[in-house]
Amino acid sequence: MGGTLMIAPIAGVLALLFAYYKASSINKVDPGTERMKEISSFIHEGAMAFLAREYKSVGIFAIILFVVLGFAIGWTTALAYAIGSGFSVLAGYFGMTVATKANVRTANAAKEFGMNKALDVAFSGGSVMGMVVVGLGLSGLGAFWMIFKDASVITGFSLGASSIALFARVGGGIYTKAADVGADLVGKVESGIPEDDPRNPAVIADNVGDNVGDVAGMGADLFESYVGAIVSAITLGVIAFDGDKGVLFALMVSAVGILASIIGTMFVKGKEGSNPQKALNMGTYASSAIVMVASFFLSNSILGSLLPFWAIVFGSAVGLIIAKITEIYTSGDYKYVKEIADQSETGAATTIISGLSVGMRSTGYPMVVLAIGIIGAYMIAGYTPNGVDSIKGLYGIALAAVGMLSTAGMTVAVDAYGPISDNAGGIAEMCELPHEVREITDKLDSVGNTTAAIGKGFAIGSAALTALALFASYTQSVGITTINLTDPMVIAGLFIGGMLPFLFSAITMSAVGKAAFSMIEEVRRQFKEMPGIMEGKQKPDYRRCVDISTAAALREMIVPGLLAVVVPLVVGFLLGAEALGGLQAGALVTGVLMAIFMSNAGGAWDNAKKYIEGGTHGGKGSDAHKAAVVGDTVGDPFKDTSGPSINILIKLMTVVSLVFGPMIAKFGGVLLSLF
Amino acid sequence: MGGTLMIAPIAGVLALLFAYYKASSINKVDPGTERMKEISSFIHEGAMAFLAREYKSVGIFAIILFVVLGFAIGWTTALAYAIGSGFSVLAGYFGMTVATKANVRTANAAKEFGMNKALDVAFSGGSVMGMVVVGLGLSGLGAFWMIFKDASVITGFSLGASSIALFARVGGGIYTKAADVGADLVGKVESGIPEDDPRNPAVIADNVGDNVGDVAGMGADLFESYVGAIVSAITLGVIAFDGDKGVLFALMVSAVGILASIIGTMFVKGKEGSNPQKALNMGTYASSAIVMVASFFLSNSILGSLLPFWAIVFGSAVGLIIAKITEIYTSGDYKYVKEIADQSETGAATTIISGLSVGMRSTGYPMVVLAIGIIGAYMIAGYTPNGVDSIKGLYGIALAAVGMLSTAGMTVAVDAYGPISDNAGGIAEMCELPHEVREITDKLDSVGNTTAAIGKGFAIGSAALTALALFASYTQSVGITTINLTDPMVIAGLFIGGMLPFLFSAITMSAVGKAAFSMIEEVRRQFKEMPGIMEGKQKPDYRRCVDISTAAALREMIVPGLLAVVVPLVVGFLLGAEALGGLQAGALVTGVLMAIFMSNAGGAWDNAKKYIEGGTHGGKGSDAHKAAVVGDTVGDPFKDTSGPSINILIKLMTVVSLVFGPMIAKFGGVLLSLF
Repeated sequence: MGGTLMIAPIAGVLALLFAYYKASSINKVDPGTERMKEISSFIHEGAMAFLAREYKSVGIFAIILFVVLGFAIGWTTALAYAIGSGFSVLAGYFGMTVATKANVRTANAAKEFGMNKALDVAFSGGSVMGMVVVGLGLSGLGAFWMIFKDASVITGFSLGASSIALFARVGGGIYTKAADVGADLVGKVESGIPEDDPRNPAVIADNVGDNVGDVAGMGADLFESYVGAIVSAITLGVIAFDGDKGVLFALMVSAVGILASIIGTMFVKGKEGSNPQKALNMGTYASSAIVMVASFFLSNSILGSLLPFWAIVFGSAVGLIIAKITEIYTSGDYKYVKEIADQSETGAATTIISGLSVGMRSTGYPMVVLAIGIIGAYMIAGYTPNGVDSIKGLYGIALAAVGMLSTAGMTVAVDAYGPISDNAGGIAEMCELPHEVREITDKLDSVGNTTAAIGKGFAIGSAALTALALFASYTQSVGITTINLTDPMVIAGLFIGGMLPFLFSAITMSAVGKAAFSMIEEVRRQFKEMPGIMEGKQKPDYRRCVDISTAAALREMIVPGLLAVVVPLVVGFLLGAEALGGLQAGALVTGVLMAIFMSNAGGAWDNAKKYIEGGTHGGKGSDAHKAAVVGDTVGDPFKDTSGPSINILIKLMTVVSLVFGPMIAKFGGVLLSLF
Repeated sequence: MGGTLMIAPIAGVLALLFAYYKASSINKVDPGTERMKEISSFIHEGAMAFLAREYKSVGIFAIILFVVLGFAIGWTTALAYAIGSGFSVLAGYFGMTVATKANVRTANAAKEFGMNKALDVAFSGGSVMGMVVVGLGLSGLGAFWMIFKDASVITGFSLGASSIALFARVGGGIYTKAADVGADLVGKVESGIPEDDPRNPAVIADNVGDNVGDVAGMGADLFESYVGAIVSAITLGVIAFDGDKGVLFALMVSAVGILASIIGTMFVKGKEGSNPQKALNMGTYASSAIVMVASFFLSNSILGSLLPFWAIVFGSAVGLIIAKITEIYTSGDYKYVKEIADQSETGAATTIISGLSVGMRSTGYPMVVLAIGIIGAYMIAGYTPNGVDSIKGLYGIALAAVGMLSTAGMTVAVDAYGPISDNAGGIAEMCELPHEVREITDKLDSVGNTTAAIGKGFAIGSAALTALALFASYTQSVGITTINLTDPMVIAGLFIGGMLPFLFSAITMSAVGKAAFSMIEEVRRQFKEMPGIMEGKQKPDYRRCVDISTAAALREMIVPGLLAVVVPLVVGFLLGAEALGGLQAGALVTGVLMAIFMSNAGGAWDNAKKYIEGGTHGGKGSDAHKAAVVGDTVGDPFKDTSGPSINILIKLMTVVSLVFGPMIAKFGGVLLSLF
């Protein structure tokens, strides 16, 4: 069976080769005029400078944790942690390098050849990101498993992926929103210059932000999810089945997912007269379908039963339903967004109240669907004529997450293609390219949004299931069979864990506020002290704005990042393994709730604004529109900073607990032993 | 020992007699001019009409539940439920009758005799509410226990108190905020007439709202908390100690609390040259001190140990610390409110972001303090040389809540005195009394706020501890020893339960939005169709506005009220007793978080606005002030409707589970038995 296991790292390497091929094809496209090359180099440099400084800060943290892990758990786990961190850094680095090349080439392709060629370039850029994420993830995990066959080693790999992801998501999220708010509030609102106008000093920072937040941050995020899901399936698969069978199945499904994603990306071709929306949908559905069919045969042949296959189907259904519910609450085609738009007639306060209300309400059905999904995957995969086999059932929950994320290569490609098109539009604007170019890039950007919603549903669904599966592995690793909710220690853990996503959101939101405030001041200062800017006679100091975003993001990401690692350890060592279990469960439930609430409220406000801009309620410039802009501004840190970071937070805390579990089982509960 | 138990109902009756005495003393005060009597009668009628219609709607619900309880659980429990509901109704009715008499008399006392006499009248009004709440609570519970000696019967009483309280809080909260927002937005903002101006058609509805929301709603709320805490101590006390001892101790502490509250109210006397703030503080501290001293002796003599006493001390300390933390996050004297005020310089969006962030952040320390409080009360009360006795420990958690709420007679008096003074100010304005009168009532109102904060800290702290103690009783009643967090059923329950406070908040917030919208439309219509109103030549149609608030409140309170009763039953019967346990734990943790978050965000916005009105950031009318008003308006439903209702929601769901526990243990888990 050792030979069959080889397929996993081979599929990973295949994904990397495909990424390399795609990247070279982008390089062959002409980047356009000198001005375009210049602007694009500004963005590229800003993005790379941020990454370099970010990795330097995070590097210190990583080295400390490496040493701690080495002494406390073992040097193999520490090594896996280091490689996991390194791969996460690489995924961000490659993805962003390609994205900052693809943006200018997309703009030029749109200018020279039109929509179809622009779609090809932008989507190729996205595919590189997608393939790098799954390629590094599966080759790394596969290789570590083949060499060590030790679940605690691969959790180290997962810890590396998760900890880097949290910093990248939080830092990227703060960067992009600070620049965005700064550019919008002073440039668009106060000075009345259009979006992406080269006279706006924050315009480069804004475009850099799209790359560090929506490309690098998102890539690290999905790398983490992907690795986490597979690790949870492996750790439970080892116990659920004899030998390597459970592990092999999870790895094989992931390997098939990579092939399916490669095939899926091939569906996305700009052809004369074809609809790009259809191409993206086709690619997404095709890759999912391939995974389903292959799982059917793999489940039967490897595990000798179709039950694991049905758990995967069930998981994907949960992801799709959550995606649909998300769409209903956040799209301008449905009543909720229209309600928010109605409420903006009576001012900003009612806009905010209704948006918060929609966001909170939107947690209802997804939580019920998740509850059903958890029970369903568990009961199906664990079914025996004499009742549910709990370990096989929990393995089923992990499989449901693996199934959803197996096509991450494709969903990340769709996700990353959006900001590349958006950036291309910015470059077109800054280089004063013909108006048609911007129209094409806007079209491309909006086309990706609908398909990306499926990816978001999968992200939320898989995060909850992965965290739960890791949590189940945790109880195995500390050797406790029950975490009893009637034990006050567990409740205390539940209270502290439940609070963390609130605290975390507060910190990241106010970080955005503070950073945006400095940016606003700086843009105002430049307009005031350099009057030549507005007349186009003087070049604004782009670099200052880039520096402000960079410094703020790096400064503000430290505390939330440390929180996620330190609090579980403190609670575990002081109050014991059961309390730490309570903490994880508390963080899981409020984390999922806050992530859904904040993402959907932000999305709904965004689309309510767009809905009004479409001509309702007086359209752009009306009082209703002004109120809707307030909603959108509040929604920005909700949906792009705090909301998505929480998904990582819950998993990171669970992985930390899992890795340090054996130590906590031995030395934890210091406070209690004093009595 | 039967004889000693008599002390509880006797103390209850004593409280009622004291309330009667106070009420008659208010009646003797002159209500002032004909105009004052007229305005006051409008408010009184509006308030009574609302109560009558509210009780009619709720009555149908209560009768159905009565019949269900009778057949499913037993007619004694059903009877206790009916009496519990009836007492809650009575508490609301008496409190409001007196409050609507005290308001006009406070105004007249301020006009005729000045500050001191006004304080006497207003505080007497508050004391009646306080004494009625504790008097009905303790006499009812005490009598039921003496007659039936059956824990399941008194949980019926508690169910009555909780279900009425939820409707009263939600209905009252919607009423008062709809009227408030309507009166403010059209009257103050659009038409530029001052607060409480008789030309404003919504002015009567606004003043009625203070009574139905802040007096009747709050009274029912505290009646519920008070009863819930004692019931949780009784149900655990029966198991923790031989015979009646555990029960007796809880009842005796409550009886002493009533005496202490009566003594406490006597400290509050308007004396020449004395500071009313000091008088209120003295009264509050004195009554707490008396309870502490008495508990020391009672603990020793009844339970033969000082450990339960220390659990009570610990609980009160937790309440006081939470109160102080709340003050730090919501008072204009500390940095958080100032930060919000700073952020209003850059507009409404940053005001909202910073307020939400402060609210979320403010959950941090209180949750940690609660966690420590839970562990502390448990370990102290359950201490034995051979480890913690878990039932005695849980009983200690319940005792901590009983200790905090034992002086509810006093804290409710302080709470209810605020809206009475506020109403007196409204009447002064509407009757065009001299400006000094309004100044006195404003002073009285603001003086109460600081002391009331202690009551709020106790309310949150006791709600969490009570719900937890009731939850522990639930596991006893369904006969399960563990609710295992690694069981997917429990996690499914946790997800659904955790979601409910989000859904509940969404529903109540949008209810306020909808009701306020109708009110705004109506006030605008009256100003437009009856131009004589603004010139003072035509009387506005107050009744229409009162009707709108009434109808909206009654319509919108049904769904959230049913949710709290129906969802636990559905989950219990479909998924079983363990899943229902998960549901309660989930609702508890997110409920406490959302209650703290929403109350504190609302309080912080309110005080940021007041801070700016105090002259900073350009003062009243500046752009910063306008942004702060948006924050305050968003905060209104947060702090006065959704936030406080959640405290009841968590307890109501726990009581429902507790009452129906035995049935669920027998018939629950239908869905699972299908497999």
